[in-house]
Amino acid sequence: MEVVVIPNHRAPVVTHMIWYKVGAADEPFGQSGMAHYFEHLMFKGTKKLQPGEFSTTVRKLGGNDNAFTSQDYTAYFESIAVEHLEKVMKMEADRMQNLNPPPDHYASEKKVVLEERRQRTENDPRGLFYEQMRNALFVNHPYGIPVIGWMNEIEKYEWEDVKTFYDTWYAPNNAILVVSGDITAEELEPLAKRIYGSIPPKELPERIRPQIPPANAKAVLTLRDSSIHQPAFTKIYLAPSEAQNPQHSHALQVLNEIMDGGATTRLYKSLVVDQKKATSVSFDYTSNALNYSSISIGATPAEGVSLDELESLIDVEIQKVIDEGVTQEESDEAIKRLQDEAVFARDSVAGPAMIFGRILSTGGSIDDVEYWTENIGLVSPTLVQEVARIYVNPAGYWLRPPVTGHLLPEATQ
Amino acid sequence: MEVVVIPNHRAPVVTHMIWYKVGAADEPFGQSGMAHYFEHLMFKGTKKLQPGEFSTTVRKLGGNDNAFTSQDYTAYFESIAVEHLEKVMKMEADRMQNLNPPPDHYASEKKVVLEERRQRTENDPRGLFYEQMRNALFVNHPYGIPVIGWMNEIEKYEWEDVKTFYDTWYAPNNAILVVSGDITAEELEPLAKRIYGSIPPKELPERIRPQIPPANAKAVLTLRDSSIHQPAFTKIYLAPSEAQNPQHSHALQVLNEIMDGGATTRLYKSLVVDQKKATSVSFDYTSNALNYSSISIGATPAEGVSLDELESLIDVEIQKVIDEGVTQEESDEAIKRLQDEAVFARDSVAGPAMIFGRILSTGGSIDDVEYWTENIGLVSPTLVQEVARIYVNPAGYWLRPPVTGHLLPEATQ
Repeated sequence: MEVVVIPNHRAPVVTHMIWYKVGAADEPFGQSGMAHYFEHLMFKGTKKLQPGEFSTTVRKLGGNDNAFTSQDYTAYFESIAVEHLEKVMKMEADRMQNLNPPPDHYASEKKVVLEERRQRTENDPRGLFYEQMRNALFVNHPYGIPVIGWMNEIEKYEWEDVKTFYDTWYAPNNAILVVSGDITAEELEPLAKRIYGSIPPKELPERIRPQIPPANAKAVLTLRDSSIHQPAFTKIYLAPSEAQNPQHSHALQVLNEIMDGGATTRLYKSLVVDQKKATSVSFDYTSNALNYSSISIGATPAEGVSLDELESLIDVEIQKVIDEGVTQEESDEAIKRLQDEAVFARDSVAGPAMIFGRILSTGGSIDDVEYWTENIGLVSPTLVQEVARIYVNPAGYWLRPPVTGHLLPEATQ
Repeated sequence: MEVVVIPNHRAPVVTHMIWYKVGAADEPFGQSGMAHYFEHLMFKGTKKLQPGEFSTTVRKLGGNDNAFTSQDYTAYFESIAVEHLEKVMKMEADRMQNLNPPPDHYASEKKVVLEERRQRTENDPRGLFYEQMRNALFVNHPYGIPVIGWMNEIEKYEWEDVKTFYDTWYAPNNAILVVSGDITAEELEPLAKRIYGSIPPKELPERIRPQIPPANAKAVLTLRDSSIHQPAFTKIYLAPSEAQNPQHSHALQVLNEIMDGGATTRLYKSLVVDQKKATSVSFDYTSNALNYSSISIGATPAEGVSLDELESLIDVEIQKVIDEGVTQEESDEAIKRLQDEAVFARDSVAGPAMIFGRILSTGGSIDDVEYWTENIGLVSPTLVQEVARIYVNPAGYWLRPPVTGHLLPEATQ
């Protein structure tokens, strides 16, 4: 088990996190949503604890706990007074090896997850649409499958599948322990050794992240729905994650900040403020993933502006970056904002634990976190121009053309 | 091992086929094309036979042999004088259990397959485009992955993967033996028992064919390529296979024949002959698959006709079937043509072996073959109208909207 300690002695509290290196992208084919569903089950009891007892215990001790699942990881965290850390660690170690939810909870939790999907996706045309767009972009790749899973597959999990998932992935050698707060490495080490050290490791399967096959056809997805009152434009592009290509990823983070880092940045200023062709616009590159990542551009047209016109106007702004580059000043400011945000994000107990966990569980190292500020500072305007040319070029594409989405109100007849 | 004998004593020859119930859709994720590549390897030697010796032996005996791979099956066949049947069976049994290609052949065959893909797909914009269309339709389903596999995955097979594939799927209890020609069941039985009966069975994994998740967004794929001189329109719809829904499948086969069964049928007569809006048009429903199948409509516009106009005109013809149904006469004629074709297809040595093998390896039974003519005869005009309404409705869709494809010449600037 990899262990990270981030001392912060401002208050006698700690955040204790276990990050399992397993996420939705590691599910067996046909069992979408299993990692997330399994995250729910982890609160449903062990040989020692009743269903729900984990969280009520944490709360009784004055703390709070939660968990979340992504494509690449499943994380459990508790924020608690440092004096109760040992108890929480023991409970976490207990559910790492002795999970034992009663059959009725195993079944009823399916309903909870199905309801969660209904609320967030099925009943939200935008959610459902974005799911289909990712699906069309991440071809032959588990990142195209929604983390929450598909209704028909959630319904079909068998207890045996659930058990296999747990037996395969939940083990100390597949976990990262991150503790931040009022503790030192010297204090944590003996505790961690005693509590987690005795849990037997498992032989872990390879995490399969297939290569996305190249393609050349442009895809446009259109959804007309009566609940849509405002047309919306989206376009998603494949891009490398920080783990795949750190240099390009850092430059894409700077490009992101230049395009969409506030009211004075390029897309907003041009489309919303100056030209008044859009009421909102966003450029969103996410860097954390074991392999491929994506860039999502979104915009809401002003009255009377078509989605095709909006797309052209966005492309014009991107083309400017490709043709003329960005200024040293723009780049410096964007880098400064990113670095400030990073400092701010780390100025808490839970924040840095989140950052370390996320980077370490998506293929990064401690150095990647420690030197991130420095590395971002090395990005040159030329490299920003270069990554724009490679990944969001209106006249080309990287690996596969982007997927364009048109969300429209029901056609009036 | 299931055994089917189809006696036909017109000449002293037999067709001997082994159908393995494994195809491209059974490949491990990330190893696309393995089933087909493996089919190639089956000719590369065993402990007894040198690479290539299988085929040269069959040819020396005056016969011929070949093999083919689909999403759901891999089949090997030899047509040979009946006196040599035993020898061929022994060789087939040998490679069922003793495959042993030398390492250099295992590597060089990869190059052969890569070249095959280059020729048939990479260098053919239509091939590449159709691959992407199937990909967009068969979401979360192995039928969306090309049988030949993706370049980058073919390149990466390891000997261990190949060995695992063979050890998992190649066994007598996963094979169907079909022999047609100058032989009787009484003659074949002892031979089959002696030759194949001694091969140990294997515990077979479940064949996973996940449910395709419902969707509601319409997808249009566009490819402009300098090698395209003539625009082309394609639209593919999901439909049930004969194994999934025999009744609907039979009606779709009749609908297919009514829409596109020759020069006098609906689409051709209307679009090409009467309106002169297209130079070609096709409607193609394929019925054999372990689960989902598809309907593909294709058309080439006449000079000056846009692909959108062409699509509307095709939809008008479909809408006519939905609104007004088909006549008893049309239906009777289509059924008669299908039945005649079936009789014709069975009037050979190899033909019926192909039919039985294909049906049995895609979830059908011997009765499904035997009663097919009778079942097709039961399709009513009302059911034809009904399946048109369900599966190719311009105003709706079954499970997911169809995927539309526009193949266009490079835009002139």
